Amino acid sequence: MAIILGDHQYGKAENRIVRIVRDTPRHEIRDVNVSTCMRGAFDAAHLTGDQGSVLPTDTQKQTAYAFAKTVGLASLERYAYALATHFVGDVEPIAEARIELEEFAWDRISVAGAEHDHTWVRNGQEVRTMSVTVRGAGEDRSVWITGGLKDLVVLKSGGSEFHGFLKDEYTILEPTSDRIMATALTASWRFGAVDVDTYDFDAAYAAIKSAMVETFASHHSLALQQTLFEMGKAAIVAVPELVEVRMSAPNKHHFQYDLQRFGINNNNEVFHADDRPYGLIQASVTTDDAPDAGPAWQAYSGLV
Amino acid sequence: MAIILGDHQYGKAENRIVRIVRDTPRHEIRDVNVSTCMRGAFDAAHLTGDQGSVLPTDTQKQTAYAFAKTVGLASLERYAYALATHFVGDVEPIAEARIELEEFAWDRISVAGAEHDHTWVRNGQEVRTMSVTVRGAGEDRSVWITGGLKDLVVLKSGGSEFHGFLKDEYTILEPTSDRIMATALTASWRFGAVDVDTYDFDAAYAAIKSAMVETFASHHSLALQQTLFEMGKAAIVAVPELVEVRMSAPNKHHFQYDLQRFGINNNNEVFHADDRPYGLIQASVTTDDAPDAGPAWQAYSGLV
Amino acid sequence: MAIILGDHQYGKAENRIVRIVRDTPRHEIRDVNVSTCMRGAFDAAHLTGDQGSVLPTDTQKQTAYAFAKTVGLASLERYAYALATHFVGDVEPIAEARIELEEFAWDRISVAGAEHDHTWVRNGQEVRTMSVTVRGAGEDRSVWITGGLKDLVVLKSGGSEFHGFLKDEYTILEPTSDRIMATALTASWRFGAVDVDTYDFDAAYAAIKSAMVETFASHHSLALQQTLFEMGKAAIVAVPELVEVRMSAPNKHHFQYDLQRFGINNNNEVFHADDRPYGLIQASVTTDDAPDAGPAWQAYSGLV
Amino acid sequence: MAIILGDHQYGKAENRIVRIVRDTPRHEIRDVNVSTCMRGAFDAAHLTGDQGSVLPTDTQKQTAYAFAKTVGLASLERYAYALATHFVGDVEPIAEARIELEEFAWDRISVAGAEHDHTWVRNGQEVRTMSVTVRGAGEDRSVWITGGLKDLVVLKSGGSEFHGFLKDEYTILEPTSDRIMATALTASWRFGAVDVDTYDFDAAYAAIKSAMVETFASHHSLALQQTLFEMGKAAIVAVPELVEVRMSAPNKHHFQYDLQRFGINNNNEVFHADDRPYGLIQASVTTDDAPDAGPAWQAYSGLV
Repeated sequence: MAIILGDHQYGKAENRIVRIVRDTPRHEIRDVNVSTCMRGAFDAAHLTGDQGSVLPTDTQKQTAYAFAKTVGLASLERYAYALATHFVGDVEPIAEARIELEEFAWDRISVAGAEHDHTWVRNGQEVRTMSVTVRGAGEDRSVWITGGLKDLVVLKSGGSEFHGFLKDEYTILEPTSDRIMATALTASWRFGAVDVDTYDFDAAYAAIKSAMVETFASHHSLALQQTLFEMGKAAIVAVPELVEVRMSAPNKHHFQYDLQRFGINNNNEVFHADDRPYGLIQASVTTDDAPDAGPAWQAYSGLV
Repeated sequence: MAIILGDHQYGKAENRIVRIVRDTPRHEIRDVNVSTCMRGAFDAAHLTGDQGSVLPTDTQKQTAYAFAKTVGLASLERYAYALATHFVGDVEPIAEARIELEEFAWDRISVAGAEHDHTWVRNGQEVRTMSVTVRGAGEDRSVWITGGLKDLVVLKSGGSEFHGFLKDEYTILEPTSDRIMATALTASWRFGAVDVDTYDFDAAYAAIKSAMVETFASHHSLALQQTLFEMGKAAIVAVPELVEVRMSAPNKHHFQYDLQRFGINNNNEVFHADDRPYGLIQASVTTDDAPDAGPAWQAYSGLV
Repeated sequence: MAIILGDHQYGKAENRIVRIVRDTPRHEIRDVNVSTCMRGAFDAAHLTGDQGSVLPTDTQKQTAYAFAKTVGLASLERYAYALATHFVGDVEPIAEARIELEEFAWDRISVAGAEHDHTWVRNGQEVRTMSVTVRGAGEDRSVWITGGLKDLVVLKSGGSEFHGFLKDEYTILEPTSDRIMATALTASWRFGAVDVDTYDFDAAYAAIKSAMVETFASHHSLALQQTLFEMGKAAIVAVPELVEVRMSAPNKHHFQYDLQRFGINNNNEVFHADDRPYGLIQASVTTDDAPDAGPAWQAYSGLV
Repeated sequence: MAIILGDHQYGKAENRIVRIVRDTPRHEIRDVNVSTCMRGAFDAAHLTGDQGSVLPTDTQKQTAYAFAKTVGLASLERYAYALATHFVGDVEPIAEARIELEEFAWDRISVAGAEHDHTWVRNGQEVRTMSVTVRGAGEDRSVWITGGLKDLVVLKSGGSEFHGFLKDEYTILEPTSDRIMATALTASWRFGAVDVDTYDFDAAYAAIKSAMVETFASHHSLALQQTLFEMGKAAIVAVPELVEVRMSAPNKHHFQYDLQRFGINNNNEVFHADDRPYGLIQASVTTDDAPDAGPAWQAYSGLV
């Protein structure tokens, strides 16, 4: 038996880059958190400490900031693709590069009803996420792109049931035909073949989010599992370039508070929003002709 | 020299109450985090362990949930006032009660352009805060009401300068006439004489937030100090019932990234959003005839 | 009625300074988070944007790092005192300076039973806190020093009762003569007259923490209020230079889990550790001849 | 093209269980955060909302608390194994169950030099993690067990170099032969064939942690990559039942502060501990005869 080096990867995590476009008085803003991850044969660095094949993480940081100017952040995906392609194509030992990114959205402040040119308030709703992985260079180059969101908190106070479940000797839960259902959704989706140079990823993001949120609202739910499947399906219907949607949804329990002991009737009006534990439902929706995922889901920084 | 008991207070912190109004198919929601704090002569509990004057914090919790139904949460301030008045008026050893509260706002989800009746997405922008303190009962009753917000994140990429400052031997900062200015504002305000039964606190909140945000946008800033003073002043002008506004504003530094070393021109376009350290500016704006603050700013739970 | 500037202060928060002493092969480490706060007549900065009296927060940062070398951090209190004295004494518009500081403790790693010279593991137990406030210069100089700790998590599974409490119509809590009592203690203490140049603040810290923890363990508790008072008293007895101890203690509820419904006897053996809500007890212990607190408790950064 | 259900799993996350053993005056404590995850053919729940095959997450919670009494938590691994075996063996639709667990360690408080019988202070150093996955029942049962730790913060102020790295046009980093190296280690390890009923997992945990920490201290580092490999190797040497160790290590940058501009010499004595970005190094060490990992690394709750 010998002890050997297994999988390894490294990079610079959480470069907090803000990019302003100010060519006209009406500025634009992109506020992102970028991680760069390098994969390849970095065995010597681990086994002997020889750094000859290791591009420093500081260099990766400099590159990420430089590309924010030269490539720009008008498209998150094209920025990430340019970065990843640069690392794999221009730095010899790097066989594969993965860029992971969070985006924090800003809304323009309105002054007397008019949008201000250069002042924003942060829209704290969800965080947009994204990854681009590039393997190989030139004719052998392969690309995988994912999108996603996290911490989209939604709640419905009607249209949600839960009953008919399996019972055993530890089952004391009462079935219900009317409950609050709430979650803080994290979702990731994988694109099939799209032209990274021209595809409108921002429009896709808006359509996916909208389809998921509207389905959460309008679907009469018999279980969070069912609602999630319908949300994933709606996303693929809305944006047919998707081949897979993955969701992780805590069931944020809202327990009807017992006021009967005080002679007060509580007809699903007063709830305790509990912290822990919580149900945690994870499901993926895919297409029957989806291509292999390759490294699309091989995570790095925890941003995505 | 003798060792003696000093100031003391106790209560139940962070009751996470969600109140749904469902009298019609179009539900309403209020999502709050409520803390109840009792003040009085609880010396025996500390000195001998005698709990005869101590209303358990569990009882305070039950009361908070019960009042969420019987009084309701249509007005945060009237709910808190009812709770505080109950504790002081109905429980003999309690001389003063303070209710502190956070509110998490929800927006209705739109489905095909129409607002949904009972489904919401959490608006993650700022958290609204509030306190009501009641001292004494009957004719001797006094009331103090504060409002506030926290973590309202705003940024302007133009209209901000910083120069002409004091210099000493450790001063290396360069003056600038064009920088990003950003903060995560926490503010609290104190109301003068208002009729708690009829005053429209929700409208006041909206007007104050709007005045502060619009001033942040439209005021040409020579320093964050100056901007804060103008924001506080605008709040009082918008809602003359205010007698004081207190603000705490981290100067969230955005450093222009040095790309010149790579031959790339960066004209205030690419920034590093730094975490720590940060400037921290705190200022209050008041009126020259403001009544004494009494216990209005004597905090308890950290929610406010 | 006129709108005027009220209280104001500003500074640089959370300078994350690590100081190594490496004059011998056996290094020493101090790891601190330092905030500097200036008080004085900075009205012009707020009212007109004139920064002529404002020492930039960047300058304060440079000074904090410089003093970490020149004064050193062998004593947190003497470092903070030197900084505060410098600001008030050497920078004309500054009337009062407050330094607030967190310290993160490190333990030496043991290798084959021997302490390593220059490698440490972070001791995650509590965070030590501290403030020094200096008002005036020369013969008019006054100094206030506080110490403290936060997030010291302690638990006892015996020796804790709670009964005999006040009851009203919302009281459903059962009295108990045997429960888990747990808290995450935050405490601050104020020193009376000590010689800042020679007093052993590290020894005082160790003695205070030890007195509080041992009292928590050995005191048979009839209520968290009683335990806190005894802990504060023990601190003053252990370190007579203290004139006041303030404590804030969440009652971290551990609820005995109901297993009887499954025919399982649970004799205070299985508990659910709940998150929210929690009782929150705040008490201070002082001496009957304590000097006035002055600005000792006028907080700034939230570190203390 | 059809839209279909992909991978799915569900359960109850973060049951906060505290188990006291009080058969003698000297109590014992185990404080854990337990997540239960079920895998199987739950298609109907997603596709039609039929819950007939779904054991409610509330039932899983009840079971986790009940087993904390009946099985006990003297061994985390045997507790988790019993839970997982129960779910797969006794509940028909469940094909595979995974239990994930965090443990928070407590140290006994010393009073006058003697360990107290029933009072503890939380040892905030690292969090221990663990998972057991059981697939199939009876003769077809397979088991995978992992252990781990997270947020073990270590630092060395000597014995760390970084030079000889690859350079490109964005490389400005200076090589160094003396720097601070610090990380907050997260590690997970996989056991090969061990007898779950008798193996001493607590002893293995202590030996693994000790081997990793001692190697971090005593190994002269040419790069964090090299140190991590040596740490993983040392763990396997110390506990030969391990077949794989995975590590994720942020390079917590400590930048030597530039004091030269103030005429002050800083010889690696004063550092700024930066927050973001940070290098992030991930590596695994394994044996050349390691069995297939199966579902050992298929995560669920984020605890592990």
